[in-house]
Amino acid sequence: MKPSTISELLSKDITLHEVEVKGWVRTFRANRFIALNDGSSLQNIQCVVDFENTDENTLKRITTGAAVHIKGELTESQGKGQSVEIQVSSITILGDSDPETYPIQPKKHSFEFLREQAHLRTRTNTFSAVMRLRSALSFAIHQYFNTNGFHYVHTPIITGSDAEGAGEMFRVTNLDAKNPPLTENGEVDYTKDFFGKETNLTVSGQLEAETYAMSLGKVYTFGPTFRAENSNTSRHLSEFWMIEPEVAFMDLAGNMDLAEDFMKYVINYVLTNNHDDLVFLDQRLQDEDKKKPQAERNEMTLLEKLRFVVDNNFKRVSYTEAIDILRNSKPNKKKKFNYLIEEWGADLQSEHERFLVEKHFKCPVILFDYPANIKAFYMRLNEDGKTVRAMDILFPGIGEIVGGAQREERLDVLKQKMAVLGIDEEELWWYLDLRKYGTAVHSGFGLGFERLVMFTTGMTNIRDVIPFPRTPQNAEF
Amino acid sequence: MKPSTISELLSKDITLHEVEVKGWVRTFRANRFIALNDGSSLQNIQCVVDFENTDENTLKRITTGAAVHIKGELTESQGKGQSVEIQVSSITILGDSDPETYPIQPKKHSFEFLREQAHLRTRTNTFSAVMRLRSALSFAIHQYFNTNGFHYVHTPIITGSDAEGAGEMFRVTNLDAKNPPLTENGEVDYTKDFFGKETNLTVSGQLEAETYAMSLGKVYTFGPTFRAENSNTSRHLSEFWMIEPEVAFMDLAGNMDLAEDFMKYVINYVLTNNHDDLVFLDQRLQDEDKKKPQAERNEMTLLEKLRFVVDNNFKRVSYTEAIDILRNSKPNKKKKFNYLIEEWGADLQSEHERFLVEKHFKCPVILFDYPANIKAFYMRLNEDGKTVRAMDILFPGIGEIVGGAQREERLDVLKQKMAVLGIDEEELWWYLDLRKYGTAVHSGFGLGFERLVMFTTGMTNIRDVIPFPRTPQNAEF
Repeated sequence: MKPSTISELLSKDITLHEVEVKGWVRTFRANRFIALNDGSSLQNIQCVVDFENTDENTLKRITTGAAVHIKGELTESQGKGQSVEIQVSSITILGDSDPETYPIQPKKHSFEFLREQAHLRTRTNTFSAVMRLRSALSFAIHQYFNTNGFHYVHTPIITGSDAEGAGEMFRVTNLDAKNPPLTENGEVDYTKDFFGKETNLTVSGQLEAETYAMSLGKVYTFGPTFRAENSNTSRHLSEFWMIEPEVAFMDLAGNMDLAEDFMKYVINYVLTNNHDDLVFLDQRLQDEDKKKPQAERNEMTLLEKLRFVVDNNFKRVSYTEAIDILRNSKPNKKKKFNYLIEEWGADLQSEHERFLVEKHFKCPVILFDYPANIKAFYMRLNEDGKTVRAMDILFPGIGEIVGGAQREERLDVLKQKMAVLGIDEEELWWYLDLRKYGTAVHSGFGLGFERLVMFTTGMTNIRDVIPFPRTPQNAEF
Repeated sequence: MKPSTISELLSKDITLHEVEVKGWVRTFRANRFIALNDGSSLQNIQCVVDFENTDENTLKRITTGAAVHIKGELTESQGKGQSVEIQVSSITILGDSDPETYPIQPKKHSFEFLREQAHLRTRTNTFSAVMRLRSALSFAIHQYFNTNGFHYVHTPIITGSDAEGAGEMFRVTNLDAKNPPLTENGEVDYTKDFFGKETNLTVSGQLEAETYAMSLGKVYTFGPTFRAENSNTSRHLSEFWMIEPEVAFMDLAGNMDLAEDFMKYVINYVLTNNHDDLVFLDQRLQDEDKKKPQAERNEMTLLEKLRFVVDNNFKRVSYTEAIDILRNSKPNKKKKFNYLIEEWGADLQSEHERFLVEKHFKCPVILFDYPANIKAFYMRLNEDGKTVRAMDILFPGIGEIVGGAQREERLDVLKQKMAVLGIDEEELWWYLDLRKYGTAVHSGFGLGFERLVMFTTGMTNIRDVIPFPRTPQNAEF
């Protein structure tokens, strides 16, 4: 008899039969009821121990965190909260867990404490739910692109280019750290380094993804990216995962269609496939909210926010229109915004983005045609000469979640832009080649994966949605 | 009318209708026949230009590599090699391609040359086929694990641990390269570095994956890993992708079942879904073979090798048995092996592995129970005290493709092993915790993704199966 997973036992129509299961004890009460979990599901299965016929030493070893092997009969449960339970006929302790020292006690732990126990925190309901959702979202992303004819491309992590322009980079080296080789001029001689030049960790796979879009047509990346920024906030990581689709022959309108369809698909996927985990996290957030003053509470529950995204059309609004709306809005006139909107050209803050989504339009919003000077060099310049074909998608509670653009496909315009910004043409010779040989309209966007996981799980600290977070002063595990 | 992809046009039952398509010119012959490709498929679609009614300037600009927008009628083709073609009613040049300077000419280029044009090489049949297969294999991997109840876990890329033990590491830093801060003892002061300690790029996600297996049950990683080894060979990369499943409560026999089922699934997936690309690469390899002396030719074609894996049971043989077979084999006795097998304890070379697979057993082979001293510290020691529960899967043409093990779950044995090897317990406190709290039998394996892509595509240089290879002295693009 092959041991079953708890998810299997709970999902089947009840057939009363002999079963075998292995898992970890969550709680053991009244010397009789084991709540057993094996990670396959949020749900525990209740295992009823015949304590009168179980030796006392074994009973003592059934402690929170212990690994056990249970055989018994699956029966309809008399108790509340479960349809079936196991009448234990045999229990073997596989691995003990000393209740005096085991860090994950059967009580509420703070997320701060659990971050220090990141190797054990998925033994709690909250973190197992979050990480199952993270996994489900990942799969939904791959499935969406695969179904729609995209090719997955692994862009390089180590990059010799520092022109990506998205932020501060980490250096990758194996030169002697104390006495690096020097050139005749007394500078560090990177020609002696592993790759024969200075190399860094990538901040984006977009530029390389463009090369594949301009041959394979529709591609996407999904991989780790890095920022060496000293930002110790609940919204920044030094290492995080990004999704970057890139499509040849697609303009900005197509890009918006793609992004909206994609976001709805992945959120629908978890609404369909991860019901238990979402209901648990929804309840958790509601419980948290009750402890807060009214003004700080969420206006929507977690599930309402997810439905808000899948049930509404995303409103498409130009940056210029948005500035008009914001300038004339109540919070602007009453000086309730932290950053008042005074003139065209302002960079929008999360408070403005949320106002547009939650108060004004009451649906997800796609802003487009941003001022050129607050956006990246590779975005396509509009005929007005001052805006670029950029777009940001704004979600409730979080603001910007996706940023994308139609790319500048005209060689002369791109070169001009690079010259103004001091980006070396030789550095990006291959990127320019795409505009020399068979150039065409193309577009893409970037989604920070952890932002999506935060939105979907309702977690408010980004350190709590990635297994082992890397932040300034922290690379434990 | 939405432009169609070429893959869509070729896959449909022929319905003669107006179509629109965008793509790149592969060839243009007789001022009449465009072979158009858009990356959605290996196949080009033939577009027949009515040259008498097309202006001369446009005709001149239909060159290899140019991007064009074609409208016309899809008709049955009279020509060989295609079922349908497009009778062009309008053609627009989107992006020119100067035939004098375009690097990808309509002729055979060497792979060495194409590596220097890695941003354009997917515009050739061979590399577009390889990269579509790479993408399909990636999806098959995610689909296999998702279908079988595994959770995907993103283990960290930047690691503070140097105990993974799989090879030389790259340092990640943002200390001043020339004048790093020093401690009072004159050593580099890593407490001043970004993470407050020395950090490196990971060589494996296994140890972290184990923490998730011991809570979520069945997990896998699929991410980049790194080796700072100065190996300039056709089989080594400094940056490559690894797949590492890890399963709680699974022993070595279960691990072998999983690995065999998994490998068959992903290869079956591409046999089913990537027929055209595989047939093309199969033919390419046969053509290459014809140029070689008989002795150097492949014994199986590419498709035969793939079928060899999916159609045969993998033979399970202990290391000890394998040594006996090899010692008594003809090539050993006739001193044909480069490394003669003389005694138990020898590390097997590719020539020995291939002999077992191709000559002796004539099926894929799983070797298990290797000598402890040639395997990693975390592998479970057998009762004999000298072998460990390791396994390697051997494939034709390539030798070892998968390496795995049952992990040492006993705290005392693991500590002893670490002590002997000088691995600091404090460094791996969290890994030891897994053996302190609810330990259990668990197992997993690692698959180098590029090895799988090489096997599946028949490519013989690992630089040709990853988009932008990183090797000593090379981090271009």
